[in-house]
Amino acid sequence: MIYPKLAVVGCGLIGSSVIRAARAAGAVRAVAVADASAAHREQIAALGYADLVTADVAEAVRDADLVVFAVPVQAMGPAAAAAAPALKPGATVTDVGSVKVSVAEALRTAIPASIHLVPGHPIAGTEQSGPASGFAELFRGRWVILTPDADETPAYQEAVARLSDFWTALGAQVDVMDAAHHDLVLAVTSHLPHLIAYNIVGTAADMEEVTQAEVMKYSAGGFRDFTRIAASDPTMWRDIFLANKDAVLEILGRFTEDLQALSRAIRWGEGDKLFELFSRTRDIRRGIIIAGQESAEPNFGRDRTAPPPGPAGS
Amino acid sequence: MIYPKLAVVGCGLIGSSVIRAARAAGAVRAVAVADASAAHREQIAALGYADLVTADVAEAVRDADLVVFAVPVQAMGPAAAAAAPALKPGATVTDVGSVKVSVAEALRTAIPASIHLVPGHPIAGTEQSGPASGFAELFRGRWVILTPDADETPAYQEAVARLSDFWTALGAQVDVMDAAHHDLVLAVTSHLPHLIAYNIVGTAADMEEVTQAEVMKYSAGGFRDFTRIAASDPTMWRDIFLANKDAVLEILGRFTEDLQALSRAIRWGEGDKLFELFSRTRDIRRGIIIAGQESAEPNFGRDRTAPPPGPAGS
Repeated sequence: MIYPKLAVVGCGLIGSSVIRAARAAGAVRAVAVADASAAHREQIAALGYADLVTADVAEAVRDADLVVFAVPVQAMGPAAAAAAPALKPGATVTDVGSVKVSVAEALRTAIPASIHLVPGHPIAGTEQSGPASGFAELFRGRWVILTPDADETPAYQEAVARLSDFWTALGAQVDVMDAAHHDLVLAVTSHLPHLIAYNIVGTAADMEEVTQAEVMKYSAGGFRDFTRIAASDPTMWRDIFLANKDAVLEILGRFTEDLQALSRAIRWGEGDKLFELFSRTRDIRRGIIIAGQESAEPNFGRDRTAPPPGPAGS
Repeated sequence: MIYPKLAVVGCGLIGSSVIRAARAAGAVRAVAVADASAAHREQIAALGYADLVTADVAEAVRDADLVVFAVPVQAMGPAAAAAAPALKPGATVTDVGSVKVSVAEALRTAIPASIHLVPGHPIAGTEQSGPASGFAELFRGRWVILTPDADETPAYQEAVARLSDFWTALGAQVDVMDAAHHDLVLAVTSHLPHLIAYNIVGTAADMEEVTQAEVMKYSAGGFRDFTRIAASDPTMWRDIFLANKDAVLEILGRFTEDLQALSRAIRWGEGDKLFELFSRTRDIRRGIIIAGQESAEPNFGRDRTAPPPGPAGS
């Protein structure tokens, strides 16, 4: 038992997975949940993981030893402001936001200095949304990045260590890094991929010469993987791009520059340039497989009902 | 038994899957394979599916009732020229190329008029390459597109119907369409997705501020799916982009235009525009799931060893 009382503010896919995993691990004794959606509150109550389910953030966080903000990035500040008056001095406040600089600032502005603020980001999720889509194993083997303050006091350091123990108990591996660096790393590994996926699916949807039925029918040639990413929660992602604007635009600029060079190589039939790039990108994949981030045979059993799909079919 | 003798020219992932599936379905009696690679020939001989494994294309296609060219797109013409003198009058020649207009033209130029040419493209594959990576179930439930000539003669129509029966016996569903339309549809559903995946992985590899170790470590946030696609065979894909240049550049132009609008919306904080696009792209995904192209829960069991991955994790 790591925290006597856990409060989760915003209980969608991630929030509900946190309470499921915390219960499964016996990491908490009491669980309180605050969610603005009546439909969500009903589903959460039905799950039976929470002792208290309310629309009142202050009521949920009262006496909590750990408060996890799991609302969309742009809603973090207002949620923290609503919680502030009821937060217990010495409690730890964290979040699961995909952007850290702006969220940490919003939280720090809203909550009293007597609270230990340790911003965090579990790199886990699916394209599903809502409390019903959560599951206790979501964080198993995944990385959680914490971006603590420079605060060297023993009390704060103890709070960071305890939060790290909490995530470890939920099955995750914990890394600590600077918030700005987190935002740049995630712009590359997550935000740009989502932006590109949303864009390519949008481009395909707007084609006149190719019907949507055809796009869906022949999506096994590579397109399908993009549609899965592009099915992610619209509110969550709108907020991420707006909150990590500078890093995303910086990476997007590099991507566009590279794409123009690639386009030019195709136009002028520069096969060697294409071959060189296509060979180089293979190494990254091998690195990911070697690093154990994914099975060497992702094409088998990738989903329950379909035959072995061809993510790289042509 | 649909064809007494099958000859496969070029026996990598697709070619070896064709002979495995044809054997498993009992669709052929004899199988001859021609492959330029000594290493491939060794592997194919070891598999035991072929009666003849040779480097000599003419020797392999002699007396064959169906000849399947499964070499990279740019190698189709030369391979067909090598086969031409030995082709049996009345035999059917097809291919598995991902581009149809240029390949059909290359084949038609090389082979005699006495041969029934029925270009084809099975939309199936994995990012693996080589004969050892093939499997008999690769085509099960997948689409095969045939792009036959306008030739209305009964003999040609019979040849088309028979080839269709062959693919059906291998577990595929067969569609017939115009070659130019095929090239446009695949530019959207397969060629652009691969181009984008190669590009984003290349951009990430060139970052100075973010190490490759970090990119791999945090790839679960969306990037990982791109690395799988970007691990596809470099020669095959170089050829595809060069052979389908016009359609690819056309679609790429639209993609870039849309991406610039998206970039502008982020820069100017136009959240509504982002939300509108991100909501619209969800519908395509639903369509694919409803169409049964993929399980509704692709995030579970996507690969054998990894925990439930988060393709859309953030």
